[in-house]
Amino acid sequence: MAKQLLGKEVTAALNERIKADVAKLQGKGINPTLCIIRVGENGSDISYEKGATKRCETLGVACEKILLPADVSQDELLATIDKVNKDDHIHGVLLFRPLPKHLNQSVIENALDPAKDVDCMTDGSMSGVFTGKKVGFPPCTPQACMEILDHYGIDCTGKKAVVIGRSLVVGKPAAMMLVKKNATVTICHTKTVDMPAVAKEADILIVAAGRAGVVGADYARAGQTVIDVGINVNAEGKLCGDVDFPAVEPVVDAITPVPGGVGSVTTSVLVGHVVEAAMRKAGE
Amino acid sequence: MAKQLLGKEVTAALNERIKADVAKLQGKGINPTLCIIRVGENGSDISYEKGATKRCETLGVACEKILLPADVSQDELLATIDKVNKDDHIHGVLLFRPLPKHLNQSVIENALDPAKDVDCMTDGSMSGVFTGKKVGFPPCTPQACMEILDHYGIDCTGKKAVVIGRSLVVGKPAAMMLVKKNATVTICHTKTVDMPAVAKEADILIVAAGRAGVVGADYARAGQTVIDVGINVNAEGKLCGDVDFPAVEPVVDAITPVPGGVGSVTTSVLVGHVVEAAMRKAGE
Repeated sequence: MAKQLLGKEVTAALNERIKADVAKLQGKGINPTLCIIRVGENGSDISYEKGATKRCETLGVACEKILLPADVSQDELLATIDKVNKDDHIHGVLLFRPLPKHLNQSVIENALDPAKDVDCMTDGSMSGVFTGKKVGFPPCTPQACMEILDHYGIDCTGKKAVVIGRSLVVGKPAAMMLVKKNATVTICHTKTVDMPAVAKEADILIVAAGRAGVVGADYARAGQTVIDVGINVNAEGKLCGDVDFPAVEPVVDAITPVPGGVGSVTTSVLVGHVVEAAMRKAGE
Repeated sequence: MAKQLLGKEVTAALNERIKADVAKLQGKGINPTLCIIRVGENGSDISYEKGATKRCETLGVACEKILLPADVSQDELLATIDKVNKDDHIHGVLLFRPLPKHLNQSVIENALDPAKDVDCMTDGSMSGVFTGKKVGFPPCTPQACMEILDHYGIDCTGKKAVVIGRSLVVGKPAAMMLVKKNATVTICHTKTVDMPAVAKEADILIVAAGRAGVVGADYARAGQTVIDVGINVNAEGKLCGDVDFPAVEPVVDAITPVPGGVGSVTTSVLVGHVVEAAMRKAGE
């Protein structure tokens, strides 16, 4: 039976570190503050907003909201971003995407100051992920994967890591982060030939395939750590990951469950970015 | 005996494409122009400058030079970059680095407009390499590797590609470009365990280890394409690559020589970026 890598344990430890940093900032009169900009009334945006708001409260981080109608003009949204860029008391900004189609998403994303880009939507943050420089912030989900590895003391140096998926939100940044941690990293995707054989080589397997249960026992071997980034709803209406958990769990050494794995860590990573942004600004 | 992938053949074909684009631009009254900014009198800078100047002449691209003393102030250099940014008749800018130590290289690099960043020194260009978006330009050396693969019709889709090296100048961008070409890509580096075994898996092996002759026959197998990015001087004072050519060449299917391989393609790639910058500006 594999060790389960539990999001709640990672989050608990992460929250303690964040709270300590918040206390340090407050001691200097700084109140770390997230600003959420939401365009329209998308259900999953509202749900994420609720989670982020609650987590901010728990961790002592202020959370302000700017709600704009779904038909907001490009100019108005850009003016809003310009305002939060210039507002010294706001340290991090979360803008929900995709935006309504009448808006030029790329222009709007890059209007944000990378220093406040806690959710990796600017080219500045993207370059930071790629170069390893402290420009902006990495996306929260792959960083949550790294937090899990770190928390459970899984050293990556010299290990074979395989990432399934090449998206900008998970796959590519996860690969860059694993290279930085000195793993030998392989990036797989839909064009990969004999993916099970490639995945089986992995000591650390990060799965962001975006399809329920596609990673079965043929991808797994003893000794592996499997991090499942997938969040899907199965035929019975239940949440499940990209890994066929009942098939893979008995084979590998360690695995994240879904739900209760990566997903539950990302909100704290986001709030942690706000606090880190405030610390960078304060020169900490 | 392996097929030799010759830089001069790739360059000849690339030059024809560039000349056709230059003719198209000139037909519209646009004169594609590179501006070289050199600080001080570094020998290898001067040597590269000569090569680039000559290649520009051959291809009908104008080449202007701004020479600054080694003790130029940061403000003066930034003012120079601001001037070329605003100068509509300059399409691409090459600034030699590393800069003298009294200058803040990161600030200076990012002062350049990514649209004119033909040598990938801005965060904008870095993000473009990472995301695959047309922001700035990729570094010339890994693109030269891709030009070689393309010229010789080596399809990457579904192939296993292994990149040795994780620098921002070659390894990481080469990996991203290979992922874009639908290869399954593995990034190796100094912390990789049993690199020969990993390299042997490759259908396409890109070597940017930065050490003469480190890749021997134990890295090679029949069927491989080997691209050697290394440029070193061996004990006899001769130019050589990172691959032990006499040992590897008899084993593999195709290989680039050094000299005469990747290095000879990069200058045309640079000039091609200038022309591409002019075409993007003209809305082509």
